[in-house]
Amino acid sequence: MTTQPHLTILKIGGNVLADADLLRQALALFKTYTGAAILVHGGGKRATELLEVLGIPAQMVNGRRITDAATLEIVTMVYAGLINKTLVAQLQAIGCNAIGVSGADANLIQAHKRRGGDIDYGFAGDVDVVNAEGFAILLEAGMRPVCCAITHDKNGQLLNTNADTIAASIARGMAATHRVQLHYCFEKPGVLLDVSRDDSVIADMDRVYYQQLKQEGAIHSGMLPKLDNAFEAIQNGVEQVWIGNIDSLQTGSATRLH
Amino acid sequence: MTTQPHLTILKIGGNVLADADLLRQALALFKTYTGAAILVHGGGKRATELLEVLGIPAQMVNGRRITDAATLEIVTMVYAGLINKTLVAQLQAIGCNAIGVSGADANLIQAHKRRGGDIDYGFAGDVDVVNAEGFAILLEAGMRPVCCAITHDKNGQLLNTNADTIAASIARGMAATHRVQLHYCFEKPGVLLDVSRDDSVIADMDRVYYQQLKQEGAIHSGMLPKLDNAFEAIQNGVEQVWIGNIDSLQTGSATRLH
Repeated sequence: MTTQPHLTILKIGGNVLADADLLRQALALFKTYTGAAILVHGGGKRATELLEVLGIPAQMVNGRRITDAATLEIVTMVYAGLINKTLVAQLQAIGCNAIGVSGADANLIQAHKRRGGDIDYGFAGDVDVVNAEGFAILLEAGMRPVCCAITHDKNGQLLNTNADTIAASIARGMAATHRVQLHYCFEKPGVLLDVSRDDSVIADMDRVYYQQLKQEGAIHSGMLPKLDNAFEAIQNGVEQVWIGNIDSLQTGSATRLH
Repeated sequence: MTTQPHLTILKIGGNVLADADLLRQALALFKTYTGAAILVHGGGKRATELLEVLGIPAQMVNGRRITDAATLEIVTMVYAGLINKTLVAQLQAIGCNAIGVSGADANLIQAHKRRGGDIDYGFAGDVDVVNAEGFAILLEAGMRPVCCAITHDKNGQLLNTNADTIAASIARGMAATHRVQLHYCFEKPGVLLDVSRDDSVIADMDRVYYQQLKQEGAIHSGMLPKLDNAFEAIQNGVEQVWIGNIDSLQTGSATRLH
């Protein structure tokens, strides 16, 4: 029996990207991982700011911004350009051999334009397939992919895709060949039983407990997509998912899903 | 004696990027290359347009725009984000396994902030070293790097770098291990003896002839940096450099430097 290589996937959210100190700490955490590692990042506030400055009106459906053509251009600029290359340059500076990618690069993440029945979600992408071999080539060469939340449909269309979903999709896609840990880094020390109390972190959560808490309405609605993604990843062979902030992920006091 | 693998580097300029038809043709040309290939692209007009819309004032020194911090952010967005990922998605759509990179990615192109004596050129980068091994890993995996004109200094600073120079630097850096052809694709069918006549293409040009034409003032001043780059590449082991438009590069009627 051969031992599969370890792979750690760290997803950092907008609040980490927006704070230079937090970002430095998150990149230092990413560097401490042994073995293969992939960083996934969201967009931060820069895209929203730029859209406002440029006067590109927000089109909302069900409380979510629609990615029209002008918005797609801006998020591609900010996510795949400014943020991605800034992170790569900062990682290179601390001796971490980062390589920035979107889902279009090396066809790493193929998606399709979201089909919503009557609703046109614009250029929002739902992931179809992760090119595990492509990621493996980069990882085996000692590179650490830094992946932004832009995918493509293999027909020339770029698509805006949720970064939490991308992280979970990569984790699932790599689980057949790697022992995968997925770390979600956000502003809270973990999944909270009481969203107003940072000391109410749930230490361990399995699917049964999650369903129970969900039915009781005990979990903040903003956490549900992240947790759904996470449990789907676990069901598809991902070993562990941790949810927390930089400190709690580092000390192991974050929420562990299994 | 082992035979070195072939490598073709195609550099496309702003006028090709600005025209959807020309761009499609250029990408189709890039796909026809056999063996390893790298695409290098400039910025087109989008960065200038965006700088104008955002009201970021142009600071000029000796007729050249200075890359201040705000300008660097915009060119990083446009070159490494919008243009790079658009090209990659279009290449993937025609079955070409493109992977978009800047010089920061995998530390492929390290540069330093230009030192200009009394003049501060801002965040303009002059290339120090090309990571030939890094490019070789991607090429040997069957990937085709698509390289934008952004480099880094390995200390966390991104730098705006001339795309012609990047193409020539990669060509020189790969010449020790590959038989390199460098193709500069711009709007004219070749280097012209009379800039007003497209039928005055110089078929062949060696360094002696170039010096002669330069002294006679027969070459358009805009061509001089491109030609200086090209002859430096040849002196450093690059087999051939071709300068022309899509048609003339395809038919072999472009200017061949040797």
